[in-house]
Amino acid sequence: MAEEALGRVLRLPEPASLTCAGRTDAGVHARGQVAHVDVPGSAWGAAEDTPGGLGRRLRGVLPADVRVTTVREAPSGFDARFSALSRRYAYRVSDDPSGVDPLDRHAVLWWRRRLDVALMGAAAASLTGEHDFAAYCRPRPGASTVRRLLRLDWTRDQRTVAVATVVADAFCHHMVRALVGALLAVGEGRRPVSWPGEVLARGVRDGAVTVLPPHGLTLEHVEYPVDADLARRASETRRVRGATCVPDPPDPDGVQAAASVPPGSEAGLL
Amino acid sequence: MAEEALGRVLRLPEPASLTCAGRTDAGVHARGQVAHVDVPGSAWGAAEDTPGGLGRRLRGVLPADVRVTTVREAPSGFDARFSALSRRYAYRVSDDPSGVDPLDRHAVLWWRRRLDVALMGAAAASLTGEHDFAAYCRPRPGASTVRRLLRLDWTRDQRTVAVATVVADAFCHHMVRALVGALLAVGEGRRPVSWPGEVLARGVRDGAVTVLPPHGLTLEHVEYPVDADLARRASETRRVRGATCVPDPPDPDGVQAAASVPPGSEAGLL
Repeated sequence: MAEEALGRVLRLPEPASLTCAGRTDAGVHARGQVAHVDVPGSAWGAAEDTPGGLGRRLRGVLPADVRVTTVREAPSGFDARFSALSRRYAYRVSDDPSGVDPLDRHAVLWWRRRLDVALMGAAAASLTGEHDFAAYCRPRPGASTVRRLLRLDWTRDQRTVAVATVVADAFCHHMVRALVGALLAVGEGRRPVSWPGEVLARGVRDGAVTVLPPHGLTLEHVEYPVDADLARRASETRRVRGATCVPDPPDPDGVQAAASVPPGSEAGLL
Repeated sequence: MAEEALGRVLRLPEPASLTCAGRTDAGVHARGQVAHVDVPGSAWGAAEDTPGGLGRRLRGVLPADVRVTTVREAPSGFDARFSALSRRYAYRVSDDPSGVDPLDRHAVLWWRRRLDVALMGAAAASLTGEHDFAAYCRPRPGASTVRRLLRLDWTRDQRTVAVATVVADAFCHHMVRALVGALLAVGEGRRPVSWPGEVLARGVRDGAVTVLPPHGLTLEHVEYPVDADLARRASETRRVRGATCVPDPPDPDGVQAAASVPPGSEAGLL
């Protein structure tokens, strides 16, 4: 959707090829998404000269569930995916017995049983740090499942919604939804506080871990290093995670544009 | 929708007839809606004896955009519409140049120009108090357009959303959407601060007042007097506002149930 819009607005011969910081599963929201695209210098120059700018024209073409907040020329060495230091996600769950506030139902999961946020926080402590998260990932042949989980904690907002904040250098498929699923089993008293850590240590998927529905999950923020470190970070990450999708070498005459696409696409495209 | 659900869950011969505190226009949300229904004593007794209760069974039947938070037998003299002392609405507008956060787009209006909340607050001061709001109402033959506007002020939340809080004893059709529409013209600098009050004083509808779209509006709360004053308040209100829809006299064997239906129906039914 965004790739077609970019192609149209920049008058490219075909849709642009976007690289996103977080390749969210279908149904996951992405309020803090960042993407880059390689654009021929001539198309970029023409876009920059247009009154209103590229961001405004993209807004006119994109549907209401995809918003582009900022578009700019990327600093040298920037790669939306591989330059990123970390991603922050939020998973939102309501355990209100009467159900989720209908106005929030697209982004909040309803849980039928009461959740003890303190127990879930205690259980989360055994998950942070660098581990092989194979037990919480959908396997992908040849790809590493080692990740550094920098933060996983719980708060409750004013409307009986429990929010898990999850930060890692990167995530594998289903990882947040499976981690939070294991914590909910603790929060409702079905499993002991030690259980999510035990599952992690066994290193194999456990059928008792529920992979939660995607709609409670939102990519909130992507963190990058200072400009001078962008290229180094990107090459380190590519080496460590064994990229299965290596970007084409940049067009020497081209310009790389970075789009920050905060409010997330419900279609899960961006 | 809710009337059919009630009829089904209470095993009534036909859908129940709900009286709502706020008869919102189609597309308006109602997080704080209150409704009452007259139910034969036998049906109510059977419902009360059911494990899980009526609220839980309603939740099983109603769609995800209508939630019932509380169901209980109403105090004597209670009328969801006529016993109410006041209704509180919120109108939410984002003037973020990049558009509304997609996750909030169903309940927040996007305004393309920047809004000065202080100017809108100053203009609102000339609207509060008891007035004939004919200039801001869709006319209805024979119905009074005199209302007491108890509060109309503006705040900004953290996400560049400006929120108008509007409280009155009651509202006529389109009233909040037209009042807020006049204030936005001030907020964007197109009209002077004195303009909304001048329109009010002229007492006739002004084509320059935009009646805003319904989706930015949410009924947040309905205020009732203490139980002892419910019947008196209801009879006063009926007399003053010249009810066009007088409820049937209560069934002497019946029980009146009050349902608080906070999170609002996007269908605008409840």
